[in-house]
Formats: sequence, structure tokens, C-alpha cells
Amino acid sequence: MSSTYGESLKLSIFGQSHGAAIGMTLDGIPAGLPVDVDALQQLLNRRAPGQNDWSTPRREEDRPEFLSGVLDGYTCGAPIAAVIYNTNTRSGDYNNLKDAPRPGHADYTAQVKYGGYQDVAGGGHFSGRLTAPLCIAGGLCKQWLEAKGIHIGAHLAAVAGVEDRAFDPMAPELSAVGCDFPVLNPDAGEKMRLAVAEARKEADSVGGIIECAVTGLPVGLGEPMFGGMESRIAQIVYGIPAVKGLEFGAGFGAAVLRGSENNDGYTVSDGVVKTISNRAGGILGGITNGMPLIFRAAIKPTPSIGAQQQSISLSQRSDQPLVVKGRHDPCIAPRAVPVVEAAAAIAVFDAILSQDTSYRRVL
Amino acid sequence: MSSTYGESLKLSIFGQSHGAAIGMTLDGIPAGLPVDVDALQQLLNRRAPGQNDWSTPRREEDRPEFLSGVLDGYTCGAPIAAVIYNTNTRSGDYNNLKDAPRPGHADYTAQVKYGGYQDVAGGGHFSGRLTAPLCIAGGLCKQWLEAKGIHIGAHLAAVAGVEDRAFDPMAPELSAVGCDFPVLNPDAGEKMRLAVAEARKEADSVGGIIECAVTGLPVGLGEPMFGGMESRIAQIVYGIPAVKGLEFGAGFGAAVLRGSENNDGYTVSDGVVKTISNRAGGILGGITNGMPLIFRAAIKPTPSIGAQQQSISLSQRSDQPLVVKGRHDPCIAPRAVPVVEAAAAIAVFDAILSQDTSYRRVL
Amino acid sequence: MSSTYGESLKLSIFGQSHGAAIGMTLDGIPAGLPVDVDALQQLLNRRAPGQNDWSTPRREEDRPEFLSGVLDGYTCGAPIAAVIYNTNTRSGDYNNLKDAPRPGHADYTAQVKYGGYQDVAGGGHFSGRLTAPLCIAGGLCKQWLEAKGIHIGAHLAAVAGVEDRAFDPMAPELSAVGCDFPVLNPDAGEKMRLAVAEARKEADSVGGIIECAVTGLPVGLGEPMFGGMESRIAQIVYGIPAVKGLEFGAGFGAAVLRGSENNDGYTVSDGVVKTISNRAGGILGGITNGMPLIFRAAIKPTPSIGAQQQSISLSQRSDQPLVVKGRHDPCIAPRAVPVVEAAAAIAVFDAILSQDTSYRRVL
Amino acid sequence: MSSTYGESLKLSIFGQSHGAAIGMTLDGIPAGLPVDVDALQQLLNRRAPGQNDWSTPRREEDRPEFLSGVLDGYTCGAPIAAVIYNTNTRSGDYNNLKDAPRPGHADYTAQVKYGGYQDVAGGGHFSGRLTAPLCIAGGLCKQWLEAKGIHIGAHLAAVAGVEDRAFDPMAPELSAVGCDFPVLNPDAGEKMRLAVAEARKEADSVGGIIECAVTGLPVGLGEPMFGGMESRIAQIVYGIPAVKGLEFGAGFGAAVLRGSENNDGYTVSDGVVKTISNRAGGILGGITNGMPLIFRAAIKPTPSIGAQQQSISLSQRSDQPLVVKGRHDPCIAPRAVPVVEAAAAIAVFDAILSQDTSYRRVL
Repeated sequence: MSSTYGESLKLSIFGQSHGAAIGMTLDGIPAGLPVDVDALQQLLNRRAPGQNDWSTPRREEDRPEFLSGVLDGYTCGAPIAAVIYNTNTRSGDYNNLKDAPRPGHADYTAQVKYGGYQDVAGGGHFSGRLTAPLCIAGGLCKQWLEAKGIHIGAHLAAVAGVEDRAFDPMAPELSAVGCDFPVLNPDAGEKMRLAVAEARKEADSVGGIIECAVTGLPVGLGEPMFGGMESRIAQIVYGIPAVKGLEFGAGFGAAVLRGSENNDGYTVSDGVVKTISNRAGGILGGITNGMPLIFRAAIKPTPSIGAQQQSISLSQRSDQPLVVKGRHDPCIAPRAVPVVEAAAAIAVFDAILSQDTSYRRVL
Repeated sequence: MSSTYGESLKLSIFGQSHGAAIGMTLDGIPAGLPVDVDALQQLLNRRAPGQNDWSTPRREEDRPEFLSGVLDGYTCGAPIAAVIYNTNTRSGDYNNLKDAPRPGHADYTAQVKYGGYQDVAGGGHFSGRLTAPLCIAGGLCKQWLEAKGIHIGAHLAAVAGVEDRAFDPMAPELSAVGCDFPVLNPDAGEKMRLAVAEARKEADSVGGIIECAVTGLPVGLGEPMFGGMESRIAQIVYGIPAVKGLEFGAGFGAAVLRGSENNDGYTVSDGVVKTISNRAGGILGGITNGMPLIFRAAIKPTPSIGAQQQSISLSQRSDQPLVVKGRHDPCIAPRAVPVVEAAAAIAVFDAILSQDTSYRRVL
Repeated sequence: MSSTYGESLKLSIFGQSHGAAIGMTLDGIPAGLPVDVDALQQLLNRRAPGQNDWSTPRREEDRPEFLSGVLDGYTCGAPIAAVIYNTNTRSGDYNNLKDAPRPGHADYTAQVKYGGYQDVAGGGHFSGRLTAPLCIAGGLCKQWLEAKGIHIGAHLAAVAGVEDRAFDPMAPELSAVGCDFPVLNPDAGEKMRLAVAEARKEADSVGGIIECAVTGLPVGLGEPMFGGMESRIAQIVYGIPAVKGLEFGAGFGAAVLRGSENNDGYTVSDGVVKTISNRAGGILGGITNGMPLIFRAAIKPTPSIGAQQQSISLSQRSDQPLVVKGRHDPCIAPRAVPVVEAAAAIAVFDAILSQDTSYRRVL
Repeated sequence: MSSTYGESLKLSIFGQSHGAAIGMTLDGIPAGLPVDVDALQQLLNRRAPGQNDWSTPRREEDRPEFLSGVLDGYTCGAPIAAVIYNTNTRSGDYNNLKDAPRPGHADYTAQVKYGGYQDVAGGGHFSGRLTAPLCIAGGLCKQWLEAKGIHIGAHLAAVAGVEDRAFDPMAPELSAVGCDFPVLNPDAGEKMRLAVAEARKEADSVGGIIECAVTGLPVGLGEPMFGGMESRIAQIVYGIPAVKGLEFGAGFGAAVLRGSENNDGYTVSDGVVKTISNRAGGILGGITNGMPLIFRAAIKPTPSIGAQQQSISLSQRSDQPLVVKGRHDPCIAPRAVPVVEAAAAIAVFDAILSQDTSYRRVL
């Protein structure tokens, strides 16, 4: 486990924030799938920090280089390996970070787990920067799904407590998303930006909620129990740093409904079986039912803030205040939107590859 | 995947609701661990339906028989296999269920996925009855954890919208739980029971939220990214039928906090590093920080209700109303409490077995 | 790992020789495959001891009972679970076996690994009896392969140094095998039986070599490197107790050939690509080439012999002679033949399920 | 599966012979293990082609660059990623190779499996060059094992039918190996070199056998059945291109012994339990018994030979002769020796990490 994911595909993510490179290997992908580098770069750009109100002004060039698995624009059957070289490599002495752990970060847990050998520069392997290789893998899966009519999109359902309109669960408005700060209600978006700017001004940070939808799925994807779509998506989405909550369909809201309210009745429309509502979020018994798959992920506020916080000296075993320096995203949620899409794409693509159709097909 | 779980331990769950038996195999468990059959039965009894207001009056005998792996009261190193024979085996013609899928159940998705070959009697492999073998595995893990000072308990944080008091995240009141209808606030419990009874009277059902806590964990459990404690717990908890939401620590509530509010500062108390609050739910970077691990799972209202619902005839490709017969739990949440504890126990025990300590220990 | 196998299917084997039952769970099998119980029993009978010259006269009834996964004669998509109840359950005091390990058995290694908690009765989980559940799983896979024109058969290539004629690698004589003592050359078979009878008379045992062939395979099965057909077959065949060697095609014989002798040239015959010889054993680069897949497994002589052997007292830390009592197979090879076929069937069926065809098929 | 290996560690190998780079990721390694780059390079140099009689004169620089997981000379807990950039990258038109498959290579199987999308240049992902990243992973594991007193060495047991003396199974002469052309008997080595030179002169190739030994192992490593040491080693050793046979201890030779000859009796020497012979190759019931672990791998003759061979035109569906151009190793066995050692090191290290000691240790 740890930094590997997948049943039929095998995704392995590596790198440290200030190491030589970050990257991924993706094994088990069929040969002959086209690789659209431009579309991939677009998704990566949505994740990259930029010249805007909500992200750190540091400019990273997140341009993946394929070392293996892609030939003449198509997958060639060999494991895909891609890296992003770090221009911002390790320099300076970060060892004081080992002594004074930042609240809300993995500094302390990593220190105990790895006995002080971990790379602390920029958060090391725990950095949000590691979501870039996740986007490489997921960006590829996403385009292969799109080629089959499966579309994935996400928006900022909430930032700093300001709520966007929810997706229509019967027909999510995917055409409205895909931009840097995707919201369905522009007014809500404006208020969110203001809230983020205000937090930034106060050297603080805010969290948010990302709603993601997958449309065009066939009926029958996923397995019972631990191989269900919720389990598959949860394992990878919880691998994204800062995610602390996840719900499918009505989710926590279902807990206050009655069965008669929460059940989605069936109907036949033009010969196609559909549900007349979609509180199940497209999943019954872990298996897709052909309706849009919808989930929401809670993103905690960026732990890096400018205000003084209560920390300790591990060597002195005593309390001491801490001020985290440097410039940081006042809200990570906008940059996490394409990451959540990527995670969903990987989980769905893996579930498809794991379908037990080969016996009838191969032979 | 599908009905298997685990990295270092391998849990495989099998059975259909009305088949010959349900059961599990659990491989990778160290030899020499004591098996307390009585304690295990107690946990299973909390899951079993009983003579009370909130569950179906049908009486199942959930008495596990060990076929392998246990000898003279101790694990013997061989894979553990245990079964519960079904007294209530398949009889009658259930084939009409294949034609008229029940809303909120896996009938339709299973029909498409398995092409009509699935066992529909009592829900087959999708039945909540399959959580009994999960409780066998989890009940064993739970007692092995308790022997090392790791305790797991859960309560009904909400039923039918009635909220119980939350666990103290710094010191969860585990002594108050462990009973059939565990709540911290008896008044809330009384209101919950009334709400359930009312729903039952109206042939309807209600949902709930289960809050679970794990105390006594060492620092350093779990791996980065996809092997983090959230991912590990999520994969198995979402394997429990009816779970549609999951959050850790402040969870979705963190999304409306600022970083300065959500971060847990550090302090040293009697030489031990602690956080001064526990909004992280005991997990940072996927790794335990020594504070109580806390999560909440949303349970949807039982889909089986007496009221007429809108369904279809798959063979006729036409709409038709459906009335689900039989007696059912008006609220599954109370019986799901020990299942959530069991799931947490399995995830934690697996994470412990997966620690990379063997290199230094074996040699 | 340990007693689990498989990439797309998940086989888990459990039980101890004198425990309540031995059995297996097999997850990941498509729904709707027919289960021919009689054909399965026939394969199991070939493994069972009988009234003949080469096996122990003890009579076991190896009749599998399906607890899950099979309904009305077809797989139903749920994990398949089957058990064989042990009539010959634990009785008497076997603890002396923990002190005086039998040479060639796992007594000593198990004692150290499991700290004395292991089940020693009849060899516990290390007993050859555990190959019966392997035959259940493999027997099912074998019949599902046969339905697609893939046939598997094995014969005794050698017993006690007496060699049978080898399979024709271009067209293995599968019709000649499938019996209790399968040989291609009856004269060799006669000499083998005599050698076994002689060893039995002298309270000794002999080993043998089993040659197995799989015909009708499509081109393209298996993956590069560790997912190659050799790796897949090796992992499961080496899980059979007593196997100490394994070779594919020309195998060790290839080491003395020149490239010009060992390479299999190509030809097109009736539009079908074939090789003009088959020293590769049907596998190139880990992937099937459409020719018969052929391998040979070396079976060591049964370690249980009547003669006095040099052992020790673990408690006294001193040497002492040992005489193993009871009646045992003077040669396990004949009974291992269906086990090897079963192992091959599982590996091949798993490789087929793992083909990356789902992306194109599902969508 | 495919190009991934491991239970507790996760090795993923990527790259094509003429792609941008070949490399590996290795996840699950404890933090704080020293990385000796020089010792690693020495092992890689033994694999690299050189100025000698038996290998291709083409000079590759196999210098690994670590992208992740190593910091200041120690593992840091993050997944280890290392690459070797290819200086000899793709150029020219190799498409004719897709039409005329080389006998003994994976050209045809890859063509069918990957539908013509595979990289054929230099053999692509099937190239022996991919064993270089295997040596990176294995070289690291080997040095970590050596630090604990576990030593691994291999020699050329046979080349072109010329046999070296075998290892003393009770005390393998590891000090004699570790060079470019390791043999125990220099005379045999001389004859092997002559045989190789002769084959080269005749534009042909020869095969060989590699014997590998692991000393210093604790008792109790490995699991029953499919997690046994034979299964673990076999899965990875068969991942090395050209391996067609594998045997442990007496191996195929055990098949002609009687039980009384093959069983290894026990003795206590200075309080330590030992066997008085080692025909088991250090493994009983899949588990190490503390004696040297010994296995032998058969290496087929290099399929690339200068002589004209019978091939086909896939497009024309007709026979046609083929002459493979370029310079090739007349015998791959010497260069495969460090690869076999590396494979053994990975399998042993993974087995150690998978020991179930964490429960008692962590808590």
C-alpha cells in the first residue's frame, strides 16, 4: 500500500517536494490508447499555483516527461512512467522543522514514524505537490474515459462556508466546470473569492467542499463489499492530503431522511432503466446503476498559516510557540478540484479494467 | 478486491443470506493470540436482531464455528476460517425479485452485473447478514487490540435526525458504549427510540450516524497517501451496506473553519507529546499522532419499507408499483454499531501488521 | 500471500489435516459459469488415497460441500466457498511431535515460526491434505477452460528414476491421461509401480516428475516480467508440498543447447502462425504464443518413511533417533498429478481474467 | 502484476530498451537504511556489457540516479525511485521487426498482445536491459541484508554444458564469487570461456545454469503454500528474461532419490539446531530452516544469433527466412549472475518485511 493504488492498474507515486523529481508509474494499462499531452497539461495547469487570489504566487512548471510506456502518442503496453523535475530543489537547513512540528501537518507523525530520516524540506513526500503525479495518472485515465463517453467534472461546492449551488444529480452541469475556480453560481464564486482574500489578508486560511460527478457510466461497475465504488473512490480520494470527509449521493443528508424519501424509484424511459431521483449517487450495493455518480469531499483549511501557533520543541520536550514562514495557499480547495477529478478517473478506470469480462472475451 | 480486504492480513467474506452458510477466512494472523469466544459472541449478539423496538423480530442464531486456524483457544498460524450456518435457508420462488427491483437495494445492479445468475433470496451476497462474518473477523482483531491497550467503541451519534452528544475527542467515553443501543445522552436515546417506533408504525424507516473512536494507538501507524489510516478505514467501512458518508475528526465541519481554528496545537504533558485539541481525529498525513482516532459514518435509512414504491418490470420494460413484503428493521443503525467497531478493528490491526518493523526485529 | 493466490481471482485455502474441515474461498469468478459437480469429484478422486500399490490405504471421503457462490448449478457472482469436513479429526496427544521434528517435514520450521502454537496433528496446515481444496478451485477452473477449448493434462514423466515417454510438445497426448496412474508408455508405468512397491516393502519412499500440458491457449496470455506465465504457474505450483523443481519447455535442457538449436522457428500453416518446434514450452517473454504450454515439476520422495532417522529433542537440545509411525504413501507423485493440473488451471484462468480487455468491452 | 512484484515491498519496473530511461520504484522500505552507492554500482557493473569474450561490446553507462526516497545517504521512508537514462535512444525504423518476428524473442507474442503498439526497438520492455533496474532494487536489498549477516552469492554452475563444481550446500563458498565470470573451478571456467568464444565465432549462442546461495537466514522466513520461499523466489526469478528452469536444493535430482536418501536429519551443534545434509536447500514447508538457501536457474541460449532462421511475414502470412543483425551476447549467463542475486535479495527482503512481528513490536 502506502503510495501505491489499484487493483488491475497499479499506480505508484514517488517523490519529495524538494527532491530531484516527483513522478509516477502506472502499470496494467492496455496498449494502443492515445495520449493527448495538451489535454493532460491543461488539467495539470488547473492544479498548478498561479497569479491569482487564492494560491501561492510561487510558480512551478509542472510539465510531465514520459520516460516509458508511451510511443508515438499511444500507450505501448509497457508500464507508463512520467516525472516532473523539481526546479525548486532542496537548499538550506530544514532540520529545525524536525524539532518544532507544524500544527496540522505531518511533521510530527513523520518524525516518529521515520525516526528523523524523513525529508522535511517543503513537506517531503507529504507535500501537496505529490498530487501533481496523481494528476498525470488521473488525467490520462480521464481522457480514456472521455473517449468512451464517460465524463468527470467537479466544482467548489463550498469555500469558507459560502455554498455553491449543488450539481443537478440527474444531470450534472459538467459543461460549466473545468476552469480554475469552477462554480455553478457566479455570485457564490465571487463571495468565495472575497472570503479567501480576507483570510489571506489575515494570514489565515479557509477550507472547502468539492463536489464531483461522473456521467456516462455503464450499469454494473464495481464489486460487492470492499470492492464497491465507494470503497474504491474513498481509498484514493483519502490519499489526497487535506481531505477529511467524503460522502456519496445524499451522504450525511441521507441520515435524516426516511426510507420513503431516500429510496430512488425506478422508471423505464425510452427502454432505458433509470431512477426517478438520485440520492444514491449512482451506486447501489457498491455497483453503478447507470445514473450519475456523485460524491463530495471535505477539504480542511490549509494548515500553513502566518499566525503564531502553539508547538513544542521535541528535543527539549517543552512547549514553544511557532511561526511558519513563507507564502502559502490561503485555500487549497480550488487547486484540489482537478486532483479530485483525477482520483475519480483512476478509480473508475481501475474498476473498468477489473470487470470480469475477459473469460468470455479472450477465448 | 470485491469481498476481500487487507494488506498484511487477508480477509475474505463469503455467503448469501439464504445460502448454506456465511463465513470468512482471515489469513496472515500471528500464531499464539488467544481467542475469547465469549467476548466474540457478545459483539455478534449486539449485531443480531432481537426482541426490541428497532430491529426485525426474526431470530437468527449467529454462532460462529471455527473450521481452521484456532487450536486449544489460540491462533495456530494457519488461516482462520469460521462459518455461521444458515437455519433460514432458501425456499420458495424469489425469481419475481429479478424482474421488479426494490428501490434502494442492489437488486437491479446485481441483475445487470450477474446477468440474472445472482442469488436474490434475502438479498443474497448483498444482504446485511454478511456483516456477521465481518464481525467475526473484527471481533477477533478487537480483542487482540484490547490486549495491547487499544480500545474501540462507537455510539449512535444521530438517529432520525435526533442527535446524541459527541464523544469528547480528547477522551472518548468508551465505558458508556458497548450495549445494544449505545448513546451518551439517555434523553437523546429515548427520543431516537420514539422516532424509530414511529417510523415502524408508519411502515417506514430512518437512518442515523455512528461515531467511532479508537484510543491507545501508538504514534506512527499508517502510511502516506493511499495507505493512510483514512484510506484504510474508508475502504472497509464503505464495504458495510448502507454507509453513504464518512468523515474523520472535524470532517465536513473542518471545511467551514479557518486554519487557525482547525489546526491542533502541540503540547508536552508529562514528557508525552499531545495535541491541545483533536480536530484532526488523531490522523495527520494519514498517520496516527497518538490522539484518539475518531470518525463518523452516515447510515442511510433501511431501503426495505412497507409503503408502495415506484418500480418497474424489467421483462416488460414498463413502470409498475412495488410493495416489499416481510418484516424489516425500521432502523439499521443500532445493529450497525458493532459492525463499524469491527471494521475499525480490522483496519487498525492490518495497519499494525503492515508496519515495517520486521527488518530490525527478525534479524 | 501465504495461503492466498491470484491476481484477478482470489483463492484462499484454509484448514488443518485433523481440524474440523479443510476448504477454500474463490473470489472474482464471473457469474453464470456452470458447475459440474461430477467432473469435479472425478478430479478429486484421482487425488484421494485408494486401494492400490502406491498410496496410503487410509480412506478419506473428499466430497466438497459448497457453502456459497453456486446456485442451481451455476456460479452466482458471490465468492465461492467450499469445504470438506474431516472425518478423521484430532485425537490423541501429538505434542511429542513438537519436540522431535521429522526430517523432511515442516515440523521444525513451523515450531520456530509459530512458537509451538501450530497444529501438529497430521501435519496441520502443512499436510498434503490441503491440496484437496486446491483441487476444488482448480477443478472448477479446469472445466471452465475446457468449455472454451483449453485442455489440461499431466502424466508421470518419471517415478523412482523410471522415465515415461515425454509429451509430444507439438501435440501433447492429453487423451491418454486423466487416470489414476497416467503414463504414456505402459511398460514404463509397470516398472514404476514395481519400484514403488519395492520402496514400500523396504519402508522407504520414492519421488517423481510430473509433466503437464495446456493446449488450446490463445496467443497473448500473461504479462511481461513478474506477471509472465512462468511466474504465475511457478508461484502456485511451488505452493504444492513436495515440489522442488520446475521447468518450462526445454527447461534445464535448454542450458546445454545452442541458440540455433533452442530457438523455435516460425511458419504459417493454413493462415495460422505456429512454431516449427516447441522448446519454449509455449511461452515467449512470459506470454503465450499459441503453442502447447508445457512444464515439468519435480516431486521429492515422501519424507514420511518407516526407517529410523536422525532427529533431535528440541527441549533437551540433544540428538536422538526417530521412527515415524503410521502408514504413508510410498510415492506421492501419482496423487499429485491432478493437483498439478489444478494448479495450472488456476494460474491460466487467473491470467485470462487479468487480460486488459475490459476497457474495450465494458464501454 | 506484470512488472510489479512484492508483498510488503512494492517493486515496479519500467522502461523500454531504447526509451528515454529505464528505472524502478520501490515502496515499503523502512526509513534510515544506508544506501551505499559504490557497492550498488559494483553490482550493476557486473551486469553491464564489457570488453570481454562473452558479452556484446556495446558499452552502456548504467549509472542510476535517485529521484526519490534517498536523502543524505539514507532511505527517508518515501518510495525510492531511480532511473538510468538511455544514451542509446530510439532511432531508425524498426517497424520491419513487427512483421518478421525473431525466433525465441517476444516479438510475436508482443505483437499479438499489444496489437502492434508495442515498442520494438531493442526489444522494448522485453529487453534484457530491464534487468538493470531489477539490479538497482536488488542491489539495495542485498546490502541491507548483508548488514544483518545475510549474504547472497551466485556462480556459473554450467555454461554450454561445461559444469562448474557445485556449492557446498552446508557452507557455500561465497567468498569465491562476486566477480564478472564467477566459477568455483577455474579449469571449468576456462573451458566455459572457450565454448562461448567458439559459439561467438560460429555466430551462435550458448546457455547456462546459475547456482545461487543465501546464507545467514533466520529460521522461520516464508509462509505456507503460495507464500513459501520457493514461490516467492520463483515469481521474481522467472521474471528474468531467459530463465526456463528453477530448482531448490536437490531439485530435479530429488526425484530419483529415496526418502531415506533425500531427508536431511537433524543434529544439535553448540546448542544450534542444524540439518546434517542440505538437500532441502534450506526450505521446509516453504519456510527457511536456518541452513543455506540454495537454488539453480537454467538460462536459455541467447535467442539473438547471426545464423539465418526460419521466420514469417505476418502481413503476408507466409514463411520467409530471417537474419538478425547487430552484435549480441553469445552467452547471457555471466551477466545474469548478479541479476539472479538481485532477484533473490528482493524476495528475501520482502519475506522479512512480511513477517508478522509487528503486532508484538509496535504495541
